[in-house]
Amino acid sequence: MSEEREIHAALAANALFYEALAQGDGPAMEALWATTEPVICTHPGAATLHGRAAVMQSWEAILSAPPAIEFADAQVALIRGLAFVTCSEQIGEAVLAATNVFVWEDGTWRMAHHHAGQVAHEQSEGPGPGEPVH
Amino acid sequence: MSEEREIHAALAANALFYEALAQGDGPAMEALWATTEPVICTHPGAATLHGRAAVMQSWEAILSAPPAIEFADAQVALIRGLAFVTCSEQIGEAVLAATNVFVWEDGTWRMAHHHAGQVAHEQSEGPGPGEPVH
Repeated sequence: MSEEREIHAALAANALFYEALAQGDGPAMEALWATTEPVICTHPGAATLHGRAAVMQSWEAILSAPPAIEFADAQVALIRGLAFVTCSEQIGEAVLAATNVFVWEDGTWRMAHHHAGQVAHEQSEGPGPGEPVH
Repeated sequence: MSEEREIHAALAANALFYEALAQGDGPAMEALWATTEPVICTHPGAATLHGRAAVMQSWEAILSAPPAIEFADAQVALIRGLAFVTCSEQIGEAVLAATNVFVWEDGTWRMAHHHAGQVAHEQSEGPGPGEPVH
């Protein structure tokens, strides 16, 4: 598959992820995640979850009351054959930054990692770009 | 290299990252990041940065006033030859969850992706595990 088609397919997989999330579609969410690789998930404001059982349990709780979530600005970086899709998420007034990593498995992109966190200026590892240092 | 040694080396690279960050060591930080792959960085509360120039510029600002940062609970998942290191970060009273992804480049693990966000319960994609759904 050409790189262009790989990127197109990764964007489609990313869109399916947000569709499953917004619709509270458990089976679609479960089918989206990789089965042959370790999976990792960091929900906004939460500690990191490792392993398919813990990750699926977290989605079960979330999907029982699905958020009105939309995504935008999806960008794909192919790194060593993995698709790193970054995008912004909007939930109500909140804007979040998300990283979604997909591996190619059984002829489709499947999610191996999701990490999302709110975009704000409350907390920082230091002054960000554009913020005064002094 | 055995998987055990790959994991050990990834944990060492992760420790070097936090050492560079805490010490405000720009050259060490620059040497830590991959040069042959796209790089992506999402600082806490910030939008995602793509590309070495933007990422290095952000670190320059951060390292000019380095945070008193410590990490704990580092775990490695090897996914298709990439090392996904997750850990918690502590900056003062704040606890953050971080994902650091390393690629093997020139005989060493180099960072291709960093995503960190505060652990709290202020913002969520939905009820987290352990939070009441109703």
